[in-house]
Amino acid sequence: MRTGRFSKPAPEIAQRYGESVSFDWRLYRYDIAGSIAHAAALTQEGIITADERQKIENELRAIEREIESDKFEWDQSLEDVHMNIEATLTKRIGTVGGKLHTARSRNDQVALDLRLYVKAELADGGRRLRLLQTAVLDFAEQHSDVVMPGYTHLQRAQPITFAHYLLGQIEAFERDAERLRDCLTRTDVLPLGSGALAGSTVVLDRELIARKLDFVRVSQNSMDAVSDRDFVCEFLFCLAMIGLHLSRLSEDLIIWSTSEFGFLEFSDTFATGSSLMPQKKNPTWPS
Amino acid sequence: MRTGRFSKPAPEIAQRYGESVSFDWRLYRYDIAGSIAHAAALTQEGIITADERQKIENELRAIEREIESDKFEWDQSLEDVHMNIEATLTKRIGTVGGKLHTARSRNDQVALDLRLYVKAELADGGRRLRLLQTAVLDFAEQHSDVVMPGYTHLQRAQPITFAHYLLGQIEAFERDAERLRDCLTRTDVLPLGSGALAGSTVVLDRELIARKLDFVRVSQNSMDAVSDRDFVCEFLFCLAMIGLHLSRLSEDLIIWSTSEFGFLEFSDTFATGSSLMPQKKNPTWPS
Amino acid sequence: MRTGRFSKPAPEIAQRYGESVSFDWRLYRYDIAGSIAHAAALTQEGIITADERQKIENELRAIEREIESDKFEWDQSLEDVHMNIEATLTKRIGTVGGKLHTARSRNDQVALDLRLYVKAELADGGRRLRLLQTAVLDFAEQHSDVVMPGYTHLQRAQPITFAHYLLGQIEAFERDAERLRDCLTRTDVLPLGSGALAGSTVVLDRELIARKLDFVRVSQNSMDAVSDRDFVCEFLFCLAMIGLHLSRLSEDLIIWSTSEFGFLEFSDTFATGSSLMPQKKNPTWPS
Amino acid sequence: MRTGRFSKPAPEIAQRYGESVSFDWRLYRYDIAGSIAHAAALTQEGIITADERQKIENELRAIEREIESDKFEWDQSLEDVHMNIEATLTKRIGTVGGKLHTARSRNDQVALDLRLYVKAELADGGRRLRLLQTAVLDFAEQHSDVVMPGYTHLQRAQPITFAHYLLGQIEAFERDAERLRDCLTRTDVLPLGSGALAGSTVVLDRELIARKLDFVRVSQNSMDAVSDRDFVCEFLFCLAMIGLHLSRLSEDLIIWSTSEFGFLEFSDTFATGSSLMPQKKNPTWPS
Repeated sequence: MRTGRFSKPAPEIAQRYGESVSFDWRLYRYDIAGSIAHAAALTQEGIITADERQKIENELRAIEREIESDKFEWDQSLEDVHMNIEATLTKRIGTVGGKLHTARSRNDQVALDLRLYVKAELADGGRRLRLLQTAVLDFAEQHSDVVMPGYTHLQRAQPITFAHYLLGQIEAFERDAERLRDCLTRTDVLPLGSGALAGSTVVLDRELIARKLDFVRVSQNSMDAVSDRDFVCEFLFCLAMIGLHLSRLSEDLIIWSTSEFGFLEFSDTFATGSSLMPQKKNPTWPS
Repeated sequence: MRTGRFSKPAPEIAQRYGESVSFDWRLYRYDIAGSIAHAAALTQEGIITADERQKIENELRAIEREIESDKFEWDQSLEDVHMNIEATLTKRIGTVGGKLHTARSRNDQVALDLRLYVKAELADGGRRLRLLQTAVLDFAEQHSDVVMPGYTHLQRAQPITFAHYLLGQIEAFERDAERLRDCLTRTDVLPLGSGALAGSTVVLDRELIARKLDFVRVSQNSMDAVSDRDFVCEFLFCLAMIGLHLSRLSEDLIIWSTSEFGFLEFSDTFATGSSLMPQKKNPTWPS
Repeated sequence: MRTGRFSKPAPEIAQRYGESVSFDWRLYRYDIAGSIAHAAALTQEGIITADERQKIENELRAIEREIESDKFEWDQSLEDVHMNIEATLTKRIGTVGGKLHTARSRNDQVALDLRLYVKAELADGGRRLRLLQTAVLDFAEQHSDVVMPGYTHLQRAQPITFAHYLLGQIEAFERDAERLRDCLTRTDVLPLGSGALAGSTVVLDRELIARKLDFVRVSQNSMDAVSDRDFVCEFLFCLAMIGLHLSRLSEDLIIWSTSEFGFLEFSDTFATGSSLMPQKKNPTWPS
Repeated sequence: MRTGRFSKPAPEIAQRYGESVSFDWRLYRYDIAGSIAHAAALTQEGIITADERQKIENELRAIEREIESDKFEWDQSLEDVHMNIEATLTKRIGTVGGKLHTARSRNDQVALDLRLYVKAELADGGRRLRLLQTAVLDFAEQHSDVVMPGYTHLQRAQPITFAHYLLGQIEAFERDAERLRDCLTRTDVLPLGSGALAGSTVVLDRELIARKLDFVRVSQNSMDAVSDRDFVCEFLFCLAMIGLHLSRLSEDLIIWSTSEFGFLEFSDTFATGSSLMPQKKNPTWPS
């Protein structure tokens, strides 16, 4: 953000380098939810009136609907999702919109948005893992009488049942689900109230904000709260492990679907063909 | 691509997983250039007539202009940039469009497009490095009388001139430029004519195609040519090294622009401010 | 391991490629503990007698002492830590040593050893983190009256106390400790009894083995148990996060110890000098 | 190195953290060669006499032989390979040994050693690649009449000859060899004479040193020369690409050696067996 002390406008190239709204617009829902909760706390402290709060909330909801129906105009010169929404709010409802920034910095605001975003993604990932486990379990039940070779080093080792193999995959996905839950515990911490790094002289009821945004805990140290991105690293690690397990399962199925192994055939709906060789059917990937 | 042997359409989720046009549309210019060169070789072999070739080229140029003016309709169900362009071509000029796929597979087509793309990016990267080196050199000349401490472990070690420091940066960028040139040598190889993996029974004049597309060499082994992506890895490595050198230079400048070091000040046009602290000026990054 | 069906000995180069004892010898303590617990379960099933078990345990303890006093002869041609110990045992106490391999494969044996090893490392890492947190806390208490600038983008932002900064570091290390505990939960699973991949026809009391080796759970699927290395990935991720936090703290202290910042000075006992510049003192790293 | 200004000895833990001799001892041959060349330049400038130079060279050769026959005592408190060798030299031949450090810093010394080391490794890598290519070519000639399926997505696509496949592998290794040669060009630069970072007031004949050490070029900027490790990154990238090509070839052979594909069988000399399943033969890796 460029305010006050700058005599020259940023040139277009510096703007393009500094902006993040081209990707952080995805956080809009969480940014708006955070602002609404923050407004509630500001009202409680008497910094804004109940009327002002209502005005803010109504307009933020309107902006949210515009974004969702793709009618909102994002402005790169306003750098990020936070400034885009706040500037639009202030333009529409006047200076009361600006009061929303009281006792808040973009540093704790982006930390908040990112935590809300990762929390939502963690929940979604957990749901998808459960669906996958159920599908694999159903598949195992449908083929519970299939006996096949078990392999080590891709050499036949001992007979197994196909269901035994599939249940082993479910175990791996269960660990993935556990990891997502553990990651949630560390993500589920409200950072708002940390200011730029040193907190705020205006003390708001952080427990109230946490309740409104469904956080289990509030952060204990403002410098840690604005700089902590551990939860993002941990979420990415969880995704990498899920990807690894999916890749292993996929490779097994692809090898077993070769004409040489011939253990299974992919449904036409999940295979692709070849532009040169009309007799071909490829698993999952265009050639 | 799904043709011939499939009884069921791919469900939307499989389509979304298998498609690449949402990102490989960027290759359109190279795909079209490759098709025009391929058409010339087909004409030489008498597979298409000179008239057909002209028709193909005219329509491909028209498609290119539509894409550039954002009027082309990309269709995800056609999977990739190649099929999107070819299908549109055939719809517009009839079966002659389909003849273009003679003696060509999507495997050698994408290998070609990607090489043309990386060649263009390598040239662009080289130009930008030269501009950067010139700017750093000008900067060194303007400040040729500035003496400053040289640091090891961030502790003052020996006096240096600022120009000495800057000339050292130019050396690093020169190695980056050399690496880009070496990478170009290995990228500058025509893969077309390799078919899906085993070449084609229709033998075209590959040297002609190479000349038209400005390739220095033609590939020697069809299996290697369709699978080789070394040049992409190498290009990414070159970019990583450039990034590392830019990051080192930037970090030095940022440390030297602190109020504690106070060696330099960023122009207002390349700094940002703070939402909470109006007195602040931050180098290159929003807070 | 090469037994039975091979007509030719492995050449030296294949042996060197295939061997792991040059690094997996580190698992010896866990390999021996696992064998002693396994022997107890074999005794319970009547596969070995109480006398045989005693003989095995005594000799394994003797081997352990030899390894610890660096008197054990490791043989690369025996490939790994498991075969080295088992072959020595059998050479010394005869065929009863060989009975130890009943109902066990190297696949579940190495999975067991590795889990015991990571469990020990996790506990050790937790202890060290606690020591570090305590040291940082003591440091914060000793300097509780020190006020300093807080920085964003390395530009002075707001005043903070040094203790505030240090307490923020403790929060990060606390998350690291939590992650180690979560990783332990997923590591603390006995894989023994899984055989090569499909379990064993000889069924041992796995709960007994788990109790003897202090495992909380036993694995549920033999194919998953022999192939699961998630706990290793997760442990490495935990270490990477700890490294990142230590690196951030170190970089802050190094910047603050420059003559330009001048906030602190490293003790002579933790600094190094320069071979060319006798006046210099460098933090933590030789020049 | 800790000299002069320190009042307290480094504690054992700081020493262990700061030392590098436990791994950089590998550079000893290059360190000694560099010192001998440096001594020649010092003699030319009249800084040491021809007699002193001879004394230094003789003793350095003696130290080299001791290291090679594993009789040299490495001392961790002397931090690195450079100090270990220099301290031993000085202890044995007196103060003349210390003169060797004139016009040299450990910064340009380690840069030199590392370049000599990487140059030797690059040459060795090139030789091994040539041997591998020759072996693959011989193999292709021996089996020039073998026809097999060519695969895309592990599905049979078009018939190929096995030799066609193998010649494709040779192409990939040829690119690897080219990359090693390009890396050599950038490694083949003498950094000695750069001092700690700002050169030296004692100017030696750098071209003489370069000739003696077989360097093609001398570095142009002292700050760049002591900090440049690009050649190490580039060498590691080259190795990663070689590893990738070896891995792809190995995986193909392993899949083709399954009983399901049955295209080839590994020689007993390059396979291992199983501890549980005596009928098994595994390619290249113990189970």
